[in-house]
Amino acid sequence: MFDVNEYFNGKVKSLAFKSANDKATLGVMAAGDYEFGTDTIEHMTLISGEMSVKLPNEDNWRDIAINEMFIVEANTKFQVKTNCDTAYLCLYK
Amino acid sequence: MFDVNEYFNGKVKSLAFKSANDKATLGVMAAGDYEFGTDTIEHMTLISGEMSVKLPNEDNWRDIAINEMFIVEANTKFQVKTNCDTAYLCLYK
Repeated sequence: MFDVNEYFNGKVKSLAFKSANDKATLGVMAAGDYEFGTDTIEHMTLISGEMSVKLPNEDNWRDIAINEMFIVEANTKFQVKTNCDTAYLCLYK
Repeated sequence: MFDVNEYFNGKVKSLAFKSANDKATLGVMAAGDYEFGTDTIEHMTLISGEMSVKLPNEDNWRDIAINEMFIVEANTKFQVKTNCDTAYLCLYK
């Protein structure tokens, strides 16, 4: 019913579901540095833990606050760093 | 690294992780009526979707808002209803 996705040798796992009319994933990532690719516009929200992101066309890393949402354009790559287990919600637009 | 828990024939799935010093799960549930049991105090937060809960010693169902947290005592049972895919965070205290 809900697919489980696994990336980076299990350091990132997510559950696929529907949030209103959007495809969505709810995920956890272990401490580490990651680069993710997007196919669609993504609305990412930090739920628990901590996260710094470097978005395409931005020069600096940005710390994300709990419940803060940031938007990533489609067909690009973005970088994420965290120092602890971190939970997020991602909506695919 | 992150265990996947599955309940109610896969209608509820969750990922186990650590949130600061707490054990935590990040989960999704499909539309349905559920009864959950607790071993510890649980702090449940609704992340996406909709949820009504009936807590022990309460006579009425209560609708939970997005980002609202409710507390469930240890060693009890509580009931949850939802009409759509719903995402939650649960901290075990």
